[in-house]
Amino acid sequence: MPSRSGGYALQEIVQRIGGELRGDATLRVQQVAGLEHAGAGQISFLANPRYRQQLLSTRAEAVILAPQVAQDYPRACIVTDNPYAYFARVAQLLNPAERPPAAVHPSAVVETSLPPSVSVGANAVIGAGARVGEGTIIGAGCVVGEGTSIGADAVLHGNVTIYRDCVIGARVVIHSGAVIGSDGFGFARENDGSYVKIPQIGRVVIGDDVEIGANTTIDRGTLEDTVIEEGAKLDNLVQVAHNCRVGAHTVLAGCTGIAGSTRIGKRCMFGGAAMIIGHIEIADDVIITGASFVGKSIRQPGTYTGQIPSQKHEEWLRNFSHLRHLDGLAARIRALENRLGELEKKP
Amino acid sequence: MPSRSGGYALQEIVQRIGGELRGDATLRVQQVAGLEHAGAGQISFLANPRYRQQLLSTRAEAVILAPQVAQDYPRACIVTDNPYAYFARVAQLLNPAERPPAAVHPSAVVETSLPPSVSVGANAVIGAGARVGEGTIIGAGCVVGEGTSIGADAVLHGNVTIYRDCVIGARVVIHSGAVIGSDGFGFARENDGSYVKIPQIGRVVIGDDVEIGANTTIDRGTLEDTVIEEGAKLDNLVQVAHNCRVGAHTVLAGCTGIAGSTRIGKRCMFGGAAMIIGHIEIADDVIITGASFVGKSIRQPGTYTGQIPSQKHEEWLRNFSHLRHLDGLAARIRALENRLGELEKKP
Amino acid sequence: MPSRSGGYALQEIVQRIGGELRGDATLRVQQVAGLEHAGAGQISFLANPRYRQQLLSTRAEAVILAPQVAQDYPRACIVTDNPYAYFARVAQLLNPAERPPAAVHPSAVVETSLPPSVSVGANAVIGAGARVGEGTIIGAGCVVGEGTSIGADAVLHGNVTIYRDCVIGARVVIHSGAVIGSDGFGFARENDGSYVKIPQIGRVVIGDDVEIGANTTIDRGTLEDTVIEEGAKLDNLVQVAHNCRVGAHTVLAGCTGIAGSTRIGKRCMFGGAAMIIGHIEIADDVIITGASFVGKSIRQPGTYTGQIPSQKHEEWLRNFSHLRHLDGLAARIRALENRLGELEKKP
Repeated sequence: MPSRSGGYALQEIVQRIGGELRGDATLRVQQVAGLEHAGAGQISFLANPRYRQQLLSTRAEAVILAPQVAQDYPRACIVTDNPYAYFARVAQLLNPAERPPAAVHPSAVVETSLPPSVSVGANAVIGAGARVGEGTIIGAGCVVGEGTSIGADAVLHGNVTIYRDCVIGARVVIHSGAVIGSDGFGFARENDGSYVKIPQIGRVVIGDDVEIGANTTIDRGTLEDTVIEEGAKLDNLVQVAHNCRVGAHTVLAGCTGIAGSTRIGKRCMFGGAAMIIGHIEIADDVIITGASFVGKSIRQPGTYTGQIPSQKHEEWLRNFSHLRHLDGLAARIRALENRLGELEKKP
Repeated sequence: MPSRSGGYALQEIVQRIGGELRGDATLRVQQVAGLEHAGAGQISFLANPRYRQQLLSTRAEAVILAPQVAQDYPRACIVTDNPYAYFARVAQLLNPAERPPAAVHPSAVVETSLPPSVSVGANAVIGAGARVGEGTIIGAGCVVGEGTSIGADAVLHGNVTIYRDCVIGARVVIHSGAVIGSDGFGFARENDGSYVKIPQIGRVVIGDDVEIGANTTIDRGTLEDTVIEEGAKLDNLVQVAHNCRVGAHTVLAGCTGIAGSTRIGKRCMFGGAAMIIGHIEIADDVIITGASFVGKSIRQPGTYTGQIPSQKHEEWLRNFSHLRHLDGLAARIRALENRLGELEKKP
Repeated sequence: MPSRSGGYALQEIVQRIGGELRGDATLRVQQVAGLEHAGAGQISFLANPRYRQQLLSTRAEAVILAPQVAQDYPRACIVTDNPYAYFARVAQLLNPAERPPAAVHPSAVVETSLPPSVSVGANAVIGAGARVGEGTIIGAGCVVGEGTSIGADAVLHGNVTIYRDCVIGARVVIHSGAVIGSDGFGFARENDGSYVKIPQIGRVVIGDDVEIGANTTIDRGTLEDTVIEEGAKLDNLVQVAHNCRVGAHTVLAGCTGIAGSTRIGKRCMFGGAAMIIGHIEIADDVIITGASFVGKSIRQPGTYTGQIPSQKHEEWLRNFSHLRHLDGLAARIRALENRLGELEKKP
């Protein structure tokens, strides 16, 4: 993938991003790459000292390194205490996002007034009373409901849907197919087994710098709001039910589901397909490994797991047949203990 | 959230919805709220007598109560045998849905004739031969295929897609991003490992009063139809594969998946992320708890579970290492029983 | 469902598809059906000899059979070594897909030049520099990004989104709501717990004859490409994260999730809701049963499983309470073995 920028000299990079430059400051890099694949004109990084072996053989033009690794490295490098974050910033510098022109496509239907710096793609629809901040990009085919507010410099990729009266922060990125503000799943059961819909009159409120993945769904609250705090990152096909709160800088990987009214702390990390029951609280700094089910509140930071790793089908058949009879196995162990105790008492 | 109506006196509410009014009939309420958060002008409810303590401290203007709780309550209340369903009806009364004007937006592409009471949003597309009932709302960006029929007073929120020749009942609500009538996943394997597509010529038939969540997918049948019976409620990101039947008033919470040709009874409740294998039958009135896998037919009503609750990662590592060797543990218990039996036979 | 074709005589079918015809070659069939439901004018098949009993009672006009079954069948049949694949071809013959006219709908926004055989639906948007092959159908409301290439005879159903610079093969079918080329989930963590986005500059490359289900998401690669090889079939609501490779003719059933940088071999079959961790490799010809979690590489072909089948909730409570204490049960078995060993040593 060629760089979208013309490249930068290493000295220009440290002027913009910081860090300590060692070696030839005039070397130019055009693109980022992993240590193994990097070649001429490419800059790479080493985050995990365990892989320092790869430094010996890399053909990268320059490398971003932590201080404890940099001392051994004889070629051009940038020294920083967080090489991976630095690498991300260099990647952004070398690959600036292409911006569509600041204009409303003639096929878009916009029933509100917009700042001139906003870009609205073809066939997008923006309802009456919606507010959109400076520099925001609304992709083709998006539907933004009446009264919804979107902050500055946000990006809605194509075919995003936001219902009415939601609040989206600045610099939020929402990927295609995501749905924000659909009705929470709230129904009261009648005595005959049928259901009466409970109007969902809360909103979805999304903080600044949040990213929402493709086809992710976030329901509006029943009476209060569903809230995604600043800096949270949600991957694709994530479901956040009504009345939930997702804490700042929390990361939810793909296919994660959060049932209604659950509150998740700050800086949590949920692996893919984690499934979280409703009406619980999860503390700050909790890690849930992928495909784990969380059925009650977690009060302490730490890593929590509930996976069943796959094994060969025949072995699984042998082992898991016992799972349904664990109570019996436990009873047999107790009986053995009792009988053995009797026997041991004998002279 | 302010009420969209001007509010109602309690006597107006019981005139419309029924129930027995106690206390000042002229008290006006503008909005619903939970017991804990309710204040002046708000009406709340108590469904579970276990929380009757909250009645002592609530500042709600009025409360909806069951008879056995109402006798102790000294202030204005409405007495009914199903306070939660009553509350839902009051919430609907106080928060009537806003209706867009009954008109076809000039940017919509409509290749069929529609009753004048229908509303079609901007950039929606309705194919030739489609039929839409009186009062139905088709949101912006929706695509309705040729020959599809939608009943009266239905609501399609923005960016819904319905393929050709499907049948959608009256008062059905479909949330954004939902896809109805996509091809079932049917392929025949060739001897070389490649696949031949089996045309999916059935339809999706959805009964009256069904609600379909955001980004939910319902595939059309292979030869017969995929059927969602009346009053069923499907949450977001639910997958219903081809040839399935979901019984009346059954509720499928978010991220649930139903594989092909499975038949689910009436009034079932599936928790979030329940995963149901194909070609099985599930009886009426079955409850599947969230994140459970159902691998064979369930013939009896009741609650079924197959969850692995998460625990601290270190504990999980200790405990789950044995899971792959349960068969060995069981064999060791058997051996112990035999050896102990021998020993006990000794004089 | 009436046939969309006028029907075919059996001799016309074998002329087109091959196979050996037995019985009256002039019999006409209009539609396919299962053995149990087939009637006059319908052709059915028997793939699994176990169900040969159904041959005795079927009212199908003709049946597609394997040689070892055909010898006993007294009526019209077509003999082939793969009756199911043959059936699929007959079903295609009898139910040709309806093609919209080869034209660009006036409401579509097309910023590139297209071959005249392409069909573009209402309100679709195709970006500058995109290339579309002969005979391809772009459904209503689709958004195709700049520079993306789509092969010949592909079908995008309504409301599909493809980001910029992706490559889609010939005869690919993409169902509604699918999103191809969204940013991979790549962020570097700052020391304060916030995240810096890593630009995702790879592409999605999809081979010929792939089918992608409704609301499925496939993220673009970070630096390299995400690749779906030829003939792979992805069902609805599947998530394929950045940098993955899905091998040729591999089948991923609904709700499957593949985390980043995982490589899956050829001709694999993943059951619904299989969840695969990132950065692993799965060999060719691996079968993962539905709802199984795969947490490490699989090097050998075969079937792998990690399901917890549901049971009655009360039984599950009894059995699964022990799951969290398996380590304790194992320790008690060891202790019993030691004590019993001591006892057995006694004279």
